[in-house]
Amino acid sequence: MDHKRIIEMTFHEKAVLPKGFTCAGGNCGLKGEGKDLAIFCSEVRADAAGVFTKNKFPGAPVILGREIIRKGYLRAIVANSKVSNVGTGTRGLENARRMARAVSETFDILEEEVIMSSTGVIGKPLPVEKIERGIREMSGHFQDDPLVAAAGIMTTDTYPKAFSVSVEEARITIVGKGAGMVAPDMATMLIYILTDAEIRNPLLDQLLKDAVGDSFNMLSVDTDMSTSDTCLIMANGLAGKVDERRFAETLNAACIEMAKMLARDAEGATKLLLANVSGAKTTDEARLIAKSIINSPLIKTMAYGADPNIGRVLMAIGKCTECEIQPERIEIQINNRRVYSEEARRDFDEGELRRLLAGDPVEITANLNIGPGRATAYGCDLTEGYVKENAAYYSS
Amino acid sequence: MDHKRIIEMTFHEKAVLPKGFTCAGGNCGLKGEGKDLAIFCSEVRADAAGVFTKNKFPGAPVILGREIIRKGYLRAIVANSKVSNVGTGTRGLENARRMARAVSETFDILEEEVIMSSTGVIGKPLPVEKIERGIREMSGHFQDDPLVAAAGIMTTDTYPKAFSVSVEEARITIVGKGAGMVAPDMATMLIYILTDAEIRNPLLDQLLKDAVGDSFNMLSVDTDMSTSDTCLIMANGLAGKVDERRFAETLNAACIEMAKMLARDAEGATKLLLANVSGAKTTDEARLIAKSIINSPLIKTMAYGADPNIGRVLMAIGKCTECEIQPERIEIQINNRRVYSEEARRDFDEGELRRLLAGDPVEITANLNIGPGRATAYGCDLTEGYVKENAAYYSS
Repeated sequence: MDHKRIIEMTFHEKAVLPKGFTCAGGNCGLKGEGKDLAIFCSEVRADAAGVFTKNKFPGAPVILGREIIRKGYLRAIVANSKVSNVGTGTRGLENARRMARAVSETFDILEEEVIMSSTGVIGKPLPVEKIERGIREMSGHFQDDPLVAAAGIMTTDTYPKAFSVSVEEARITIVGKGAGMVAPDMATMLIYILTDAEIRNPLLDQLLKDAVGDSFNMLSVDTDMSTSDTCLIMANGLAGKVDERRFAETLNAACIEMAKMLARDAEGATKLLLANVSGAKTTDEARLIAKSIINSPLIKTMAYGADPNIGRVLMAIGKCTECEIQPERIEIQINNRRVYSEEARRDFDEGELRRLLAGDPVEITANLNIGPGRATAYGCDLTEGYVKENAAYYSS
Repeated sequence: MDHKRIIEMTFHEKAVLPKGFTCAGGNCGLKGEGKDLAIFCSEVRADAAGVFTKNKFPGAPVILGREIIRKGYLRAIVANSKVSNVGTGTRGLENARRMARAVSETFDILEEEVIMSSTGVIGKPLPVEKIERGIREMSGHFQDDPLVAAAGIMTTDTYPKAFSVSVEEARITIVGKGAGMVAPDMATMLIYILTDAEIRNPLLDQLLKDAVGDSFNMLSVDTDMSTSDTCLIMANGLAGKVDERRFAETLNAACIEMAKMLARDAEGATKLLLANVSGAKTTDEARLIAKSIINSPLIKTMAYGADPNIGRVLMAIGKCTECEIQPERIEIQINNRRVYSEEARRDFDEGELRRLLAGDPVEITANLNIGPGRATAYGCDLTEGYVKENAAYYSS
């Protein structure tokens, strides 16, 4: 089923945590104002899986997180914003461990069942004493609104992001912070998915990897790969078994929806950009071409300015030199109106194209008419706002 | 020898054409004002070689140019700006041929010895009658200042680019138009290299490919690969034989110098960016990492804002996931001052780093301390000016 349809059918008006989960968010003094710390807990041990950045300069929480998640279960996630604990050596590893230990001691959870994230500026030591004190002070402030904790992992996001969807009697709640805006330092993305469905490992792990492949891995704000990207799922089983296929479909749809929310709220963005590619030789080639379109600064500025410079889409397809492309077969649509094909070059109305590009979202669809490969990538426009935010992020 | 030293020793105060070359530049009505047409001629047949864009959606002049250059000689180059003749089908091919034919008939040169380029907006028909008339009107206006013709291929460049260097009794004159600014449509780059040295094919072809590999292929303004990129060399031999090694060194140095001029004058750029990588496992890995640094929008905005956010360099190195990288060995310098290493994380002075980043150029040097691979990439900062120019290029 189409992901939009799944979201419509299963969406909760108000984000709520699944059964047996609680959370807290607060300020521990890393930021002058606003929340900078978040904790999510499950009252019982949950099956868990995670995917992490492939950046070769990973942060301490990513290095440890890969180890922790290997056991396949978790009870808590603790995360801070403002300082990312990346490029901090062995002391950084110890500081990350201290975050988990503070949660373990305060809430009586095994230390090995606590995973941690940090997001923000890199290369600066983590003010771990403040975080430890903040964790202790959170005791007694737990509740069931995921937006409170979502606020704790925000950096330059304009609003906290969390929503809930249903699968039969179970619920999936997904919390995220933005790519390219969250820690503008390096497009840090953090995603936490909580569910009370009973989905066990290794299936849970596989379903997470599948969902990430079509959603967050197809999201790009500025091509810069974070040292801290982390996506975790916890399934505590308190709502019992659900149909696996429906769970997988709903999980995929929720991840795509969150990817779109992150893109739309990226640094300086004024609109969501979608790049659909069909008719490519293979799925892999479709993904490459969709990403080439979504990453092109010239297409991003075209969308921003509603400048009908549609030739840039041809350029972005053509620069995928390793893909099979036959220029005379390419058809381009913007928001479902055909704007380019070899034989119909003249049905291109500049005024209409301007109107289409002025909208939000701008959906670019390219049919290569060669094979069965299809993919969609998610991104945003490029504006003066992006330049301004990133020319002074460290200093501000 | 270092390329800067070669340029210092061989540079001519005033750009001049080599023996036996003439040129002309003029307005044929494609632009409202300013030159939009250029011709370069050799009085005798010159050995010639060329490299073209790898974009799979090449312009008509590129499709024909690949055929024309195969014979290995040329007498003339004709180029227009404003309209790129890309995405124009079979009529575009015929229009490109008509440009060559007009030069052939007007100046009594074999048609097969004339190559053509077009740069500007894509997907629009070439106004070929205006160009033909413009070519005929250029008769009698030939002279030896390459800047006059360089002006004819400008689009949004802020000044025409051409300079001359010497190799013994011979001269190399290189004319270029900018990457990412010239035809902001898609970073179109045109480079014409003229020399009176006697360097024959296939050597000439090999020397051109070698020089391009370390210069223009290491240049990136915005990662968007043009459908029109073309670099041509003509060697008419009128100054006789020269030492081949000195010729190759000087050609390489001249191409690097032109790449730097193009980067510095790119759309919206306020400064030149250089990324030196040493100690990589191989030269190929060094090139990948240097390009990752030069292309990172977060590094480009950091340089623009002189924001001491040096962790972004680590991120850009780390995102080269296919390269061998050992985080604890990496050393980073900015303008020859060490700003990061694992053991000396504290000799990092924010104020000094701000001053270094405020300069022009900003030279980022990363030593991976693993192997012998080294490379340098050329680029520029990312500013609001880039966004503004490209959000309205088609319309302006």
